[in-house]
Amino acid sequence: MSDKIKMQLQCPMPDLDYDIITLGHGSGGKLTNRLLEKTVFEVFNNDEINTRHDGALLKMNGNIVFSTDSFVVSPIFFPGGDIGELAVNGTVNDVAMCGGIPKYLSLSFIIEEGMKMKDFWNVLIGVKYACDKAGVQIVTGDTKVVERGKGDKIFINTTGIGELHPNADIRLERVKKGDKIIVSGNIATHGISILSVRRGLEFESDIESDTCNLNHTVITLLNEFGQDIHLMRDPTRGGVASTLNELSRDSQMGFDLKECAMPIDGQVASACEMLGLDPLYVANEGVFIAIVKASRADQILNKLRTLEFGNNSAIIGEVVDDHPGKVIIESKIGGKRVVHMAVGEQLPRIC
Amino acid sequence: MSDKIKMQLQCPMPDLDYDIITLGHGSGGKLTNRLLEKTVFEVFNNDEINTRHDGALLKMNGNIVFSTDSFVVSPIFFPGGDIGELAVNGTVNDVAMCGGIPKYLSLSFIIEEGMKMKDFWNVLIGVKYACDKAGVQIVTGDTKVVERGKGDKIFINTTGIGELHPNADIRLERVKKGDKIIVSGNIATHGISILSVRRGLEFESDIESDTCNLNHTVITLLNEFGQDIHLMRDPTRGGVASTLNELSRDSQMGFDLKECAMPIDGQVASACEMLGLDPLYVANEGVFIAIVKASRADQILNKLRTLEFGNNSAIIGEVVDDHPGKVIIESKIGGKRVVHMAVGEQLPRIC
Repeated sequence: MSDKIKMQLQCPMPDLDYDIITLGHGSGGKLTNRLLEKTVFEVFNNDEINTRHDGALLKMNGNIVFSTDSFVVSPIFFPGGDIGELAVNGTVNDVAMCGGIPKYLSLSFIIEEGMKMKDFWNVLIGVKYACDKAGVQIVTGDTKVVERGKGDKIFINTTGIGELHPNADIRLERVKKGDKIIVSGNIATHGISILSVRRGLEFESDIESDTCNLNHTVITLLNEFGQDIHLMRDPTRGGVASTLNELSRDSQMGFDLKECAMPIDGQVASACEMLGLDPLYVANEGVFIAIVKASRADQILNKLRTLEFGNNSAIIGEVVDDHPGKVIIESKIGGKRVVHMAVGEQLPRIC
Repeated sequence: MSDKIKMQLQCPMPDLDYDIITLGHGSGGKLTNRLLEKTVFEVFNNDEINTRHDGALLKMNGNIVFSTDSFVVSPIFFPGGDIGELAVNGTVNDVAMCGGIPKYLSLSFIIEEGMKMKDFWNVLIGVKYACDKAGVQIVTGDTKVVERGKGDKIFINTTGIGELHPNADIRLERVKKGDKIIVSGNIATHGISILSVRRGLEFESDIESDTCNLNHTVITLLNEFGQDIHLMRDPTRGGVASTLNELSRDSQMGFDLKECAMPIDGQVASACEMLGLDPLYVANEGVFIAIVKASRADQILNKLRTLEFGNNSAIIGEVVDDHPGKVIIESKIGGKRVVHMAVGEQLPRIC
């Protein structure tokens, strides 16, 4: 039995008087209070949330990392995860990408009137499950309800704060010629898992989203390799192609990639081919890119392969100075092409 | 000419290639980048946002206040403000209510496909205007786009962090018998201003929302009266009635109010009467409640009346111990009644 299913069984939904969320649950009055007392305050019972104030009072030291994301993924439950887990992991990972050790999250809901209470509860359990795995706490939040047809079940914002890892020095300026580009796991998995259950497009597959918390893995790397990790970024919306394009443009360095080195699950690769999608542009939620010092790259890779979520990691390319701002990939048969940034929307509402 | 209009004139909308927001603007690719470069990054140009990372790196000292709110107000432009201003002021005020000195905000948009670019720009100017007034910076953010009919123009989440004021000790446990209850300004103004432009309910009035940043006022009070301010809270959704009910329940003290002491603008009072609304339940966005030491209440009130947004402040009641958890109001003609918490939704999407 998976840990998440165990948690669902340990946390049966309380009696909430209503089967669906109503506008009144967003009023700030008695209905809001009752809902929160029996759900959010019960599930995320901690000293901060128990003060019942409009904000949390936290003790932090020194440099703080601060990051926000709103999540609008559709459908809200998908193979391998749900919008609650995604919302926690997404922000935890953004904090980690900046070299932060994520500690606290805020949690804000925009719910569409008529959302099933059971679904709301399951989203909360998803949030709780992901928080426990990442070792972060929900310390403050907000709940709004909009009329039917003015939202889509539930949107979630999480904002995270963490302390900067003492060894971290993650900056665009640190990207240097010769640096190696590592990807921490199989690419394109999240996007394809969502597509497999998208209305009108469903196809049979066992592909599960890679959504996960990368903070423990990143912290272990920073502990051991610290300043030899020059930059990190998680290639979510727009995939590896868009993220590397941004980094190459902003650092004014060129990136040379090798297609044959790109780790991808066979079933995901087939699905991409069937759907006519380039996996470089498909969203990931449990993968990061690290640009690291060349002389340490093999050691970093070897370590990463022993860590949680890192067993498929690979060196996919290197930093060069001859085509600043451009990402170029060498295909499996040796041809070279420019990898552009995605222009418009390939897969809306993927996260 | 108002400062906001001056700012609108100083910041003409750049050429954004599109008249409306499309799904592609939320893709994480080229369209997203172009939009953000020409709007958000241009308007909120600062060192943190210029790192173009997924989060911000901030130097903070000691105790930190952290608060979040999502804003779904409809319509997004209303007399006296807009959703952008409201989103900044709301979170700035929540941080201030906890005794924090607001410093940094995150800014996250969920935009409905088809939103006019001009409206998006004007919302951004609203955010900028309110940030400048409050003296806070937008340091990180996120932009998502959902399909037509799955959102409503724009929803905004802001999450704020600030440093705890050294004199602040704002806690439920500090509320004591005899403490005076102060409200910092006229009540019910925001709710009525929104209603006056609500589709199907429009009525002629000059009533403007009271949305404003209360942080400077609160900081001045904390500088001078510090620990004699026992609790603060801004009575937004659910109005003064719901906020006082929460505080009374959570502190297990009773509150006695005097209706004749409640400050309210004449036009707002008439509108409430016309619409059959009790002003105690109507939302405020520029007012706070302070529960203060009795012996200092007059001094605090006198000071507050000299401060920005405080000229209509009044002592509206006091803390008692004979009906714990209950709020009782004495009417203008001397009768007493219990003020309950609002049950459901009086005015949806007021903030």
